[in-house]
Amino acid sequence: MIDEQQRRAWAYLAAVAEPPNAAIVALIADVGVLEAARAVQSRSVPPLHQAVLQVTEARCATNTAAADLDAVGRIGGRLVTPDDDEWPGWQLLSLGNADTAAKGGEPTALWVRGPARLDDAVARSVGMVGSRAASAYGEHVTASISGDLVVDGWSVMSGGAYGIDGVAHRNALAGDGTTVAVLACGIDRDYPTGHARLLAEIARTGLVVSEYAPGTSAAKHRFLTRNRLVAALSRVVAVVEAGRRSGAANTAAWARKLGTPLGAVPGPVTSATSVGCHRMIADGLAQLVTDASDIVRLAEPDGESGAGAVPGVPARGGSGKRTDGMDPRQLRVYDAIPAKGAVTIGEVAFAAGLDIGAVRSGLAALEARGFVTLGGSGWMLAPRQ
Amino acid sequence: MIDEQQRRAWAYLAAVAEPPNAAIVALIADVGVLEAARAVQSRSVPPLHQAVLQVTEARCATNTAAADLDAVGRIGGRLVTPDDDEWPGWQLLSLGNADTAAKGGEPTALWVRGPARLDDAVARSVGMVGSRAASAYGEHVTASISGDLVVDGWSVMSGGAYGIDGVAHRNALAGDGTTVAVLACGIDRDYPTGHARLLAEIARTGLVVSEYAPGTSAAKHRFLTRNRLVAALSRVVAVVEAGRRSGAANTAAWARKLGTPLGAVPGPVTSATSVGCHRMIADGLAQLVTDASDIVRLAEPDGESGAGAVPGVPARGGSGKRTDGMDPRQLRVYDAIPAKGAVTIGEVAFAAGLDIGAVRSGLAALEARGFVTLGGSGWMLAPRQ
Repeated sequence: MIDEQQRRAWAYLAAVAEPPNAAIVALIADVGVLEAARAVQSRSVPPLHQAVLQVTEARCATNTAAADLDAVGRIGGRLVTPDDDEWPGWQLLSLGNADTAAKGGEPTALWVRGPARLDDAVARSVGMVGSRAASAYGEHVTASISGDLVVDGWSVMSGGAYGIDGVAHRNALAGDGTTVAVLACGIDRDYPTGHARLLAEIARTGLVVSEYAPGTSAAKHRFLTRNRLVAALSRVVAVVEAGRRSGAANTAAWARKLGTPLGAVPGPVTSATSVGCHRMIADGLAQLVTDASDIVRLAEPDGESGAGAVPGVPARGGSGKRTDGMDPRQLRVYDAIPAKGAVTIGEVAFAAGLDIGAVRSGLAALEARGFVTLGGSGWMLAPRQ
Repeated sequence: MIDEQQRRAWAYLAAVAEPPNAAIVALIADVGVLEAARAVQSRSVPPLHQAVLQVTEARCATNTAAADLDAVGRIGGRLVTPDDDEWPGWQLLSLGNADTAAKGGEPTALWVRGPARLDDAVARSVGMVGSRAASAYGEHVTASISGDLVVDGWSVMSGGAYGIDGVAHRNALAGDGTTVAVLACGIDRDYPTGHARLLAEIARTGLVVSEYAPGTSAAKHRFLTRNRLVAALSRVVAVVEAGRRSGAANTAAWARKLGTPLGAVPGPVTSATSVGCHRMIADGLAQLVTDASDIVRLAEPDGESGAGAVPGVPARGGSGKRTDGMDPRQLRVYDAIPAKGAVTIGEVAFAAGLDIGAVRSGLAALEARGFVTLGGSGWMLAPRQ
C-alpha cells in the first residue's frame, strides 16, 4: 500500500501531462514517484529525461492532486497506481512495447469509481464495441451476447456511449454482472449526459475508469486514446456493429496492434451498420463471431471452460501428467517458469523464446487452469493440489 | 464433330452405369468410345477394365441410346461429349484427380438443353447456391447479386431448386443474362414440378444440364452428385444462405475439394438460414462476400476486368476538357455511352463493367452536370452547349 504523499505524487504526475505520456512513465520508473514529482515541479530533471520538461511545461505549476483525490473520493472513486495491488499490470504491458508506446503507451495511473477491484474486473473481460447509431438488430444481438457473457462469469467492458456501448453495459447490469465503462473524460463527468444514470449504476456495482483527471472533458483525441485502453484491458474485443468508419474500427485496430483477440459480428449485407464488421472479417482482421461462446472461445482457444476453470479448480487429470492437454505454446511458457521463485513476463519471454503477447496469453491460460499464479514478486508455479 | 454412331455409343455408355463412373471413363479413354460400347454390350472387356463388368451388369442389355437422343432432340436438347468442341474440359479436369474421382469423377457426357454453348455458358459462371427454405433476406440478396452478375457479363449457375436457386435463375433471366440449371434428374424432367415454367425459360435462353439420361428421376444421391458438377463448372461458388446442414454446404465442400473459390454471404446471426454461411466463414472455409463485385473478385483476384474491357467503347477525351473533374467512376459511365444513339442502363453497366447501382448514380451525377440526358429510347450524350 502506498502512502498519501505518494498517491498525491501519482495524481500530480497523472495530470501534469496529457496522458498517456511515455516520458513521465519512464521518469517515474527511473527515479520513483516522489522524486519524479519533485523534479517536474522544480523543473530540474535528470539529463536522460529532458523530454519531460516540455510535456509538463503548461501544467507543472498547477498542482490539483489533492483536490482531484478529494473530488473522486467524494463520488466513491480512487486513483489506482502501478504501485497498487489492483493495478492490471500484465494486461497493460503490451502498451509499453516500442511499437505502441509511441502512439499511446501505458497510462500513468487510472482513476476508477466503483466497488470492483480493477484487476479482478478486467481479468476476464470482453470489450464490446460498436456504433452509436446502432440498428435494432445490433442492439438485440448486443443485449443477448452481453447477458450471456455475464452469466458465464465474464465482465463486459465498453465506452459508455450511446448505441452498442450502452446496450452492452445495461444488459450486463441486468444480468447482475460486472461491467466496466472506460471514459474519455474524468470519471466525475457524465458523458454522454443522457447516460448519467447508467454511469451511476455502473459505478454502483462495477467500475467507471479513466486515465483523465476529474473535471477533464471529453475530446476527440481522448476517444481515440481511450479506445486503446478498452483494447488493452479486454481479453477479447468484439465489434457488434460498425459503419465504414467508426470508433469501433479504431478500437479494433488497437486490439490487433496489442494482440488482443478480435471478433466481429456479421449482419445483413444490406445494413450500413454492419459494413465495418464485414470488412474486418473479409480482410482477415477479425474472426467472425455469432454469440457469446464464439467470443469466449477467442479468448480461450484451448477450450478452457472459463468461470469453472478459475484458479483453485484445475482441470488436471487424475493420474495423467500435469502438462497433459497443454498446447505447445502453453507448454513452452510453463517450462520457462522455474520450480522455485517468481519471474517477470519478460524473463518468461526470454526463457521461452516467445514474444510478450504470446507469453501474456499463455500465462493467462495457465493461470485460468490453475497451473501458475501471479504473486507480489511475479509469476510462479501454483502449488499442487 | 463426331458421327451418329459415336454419339449413340456415348449415349449408351453415359446411361449403362450410374454416372459418374470412373471405370467407364477409363475404358473409353483406353479403347475409344465405339470399342468401349461394344465391349460392354458383349461382356468382353480388356483385363485391366474388369471393374466395368460389375457396374454395367444391371443395365448392359438395355440400350436406350437412340431413344434418349431422340427424346432430348424433341425438346431442343443434345448430348455433349468430351469429343465435342463445347465440352468444358478444363473445368471438369479437377474431377479426374485421384482425390475426387473416387467420390465423384468426371461425367461420362452431359445432356444439355438450350441455345447456349456449354463451354461458353460456364466459362465465366458463378455458382449461386443456398437454402430451399430461403428467408426474405436471402431472396432479396440473391436477386440483387444475380442481377448484378449478369450485368457484369457473368452467367449464373444453380440447381433449379426452390428458394435461393430459383431466385438466382429468375433474376439472371430478368437481367437478360445467361443462366444454367444443373439438374439431379433428366433434362426432360421438370423437377421440382413447380419450376416447370422456370426451367423452360432457362432452356429458352441459357442451358439446362444433367449427366443423367432423359427419364431419370431425381434421387437423394443424385443431388449430392449434381452438386459436384455445379462446383466444378463454376469459376466461383457463392453460398447465399445455408442452414446448419444443407445441400449448399455440400456444394461448398465440393468447391473446396475441387479448388473452386468459395464465398459465403453473411446475414443476421439470429437467422437459422445464415448459420451455415457463418460457420464456413468462421472456419476459414469460405470468404465473406457481400455483393457481386466481392464474388467476382474471388474469381478474378488480379482484377481482370472481364466484360468491362469490351471492345467498341472508345476512351474518349482528347480535344475537349469536357471530362475534367469527373471522378473515375463517372468517367467510366461516361465513356460507356456511345457517341451516337441511346443505350439502356444495362448496356452502360455491361460496357463499363460496373454494377447497376453504380451506373444509376453515375448517370444521375452526369445528368445533373449536363453531360448526359435521358430520352425516349434511353440514355445518350447531351448535345454540347
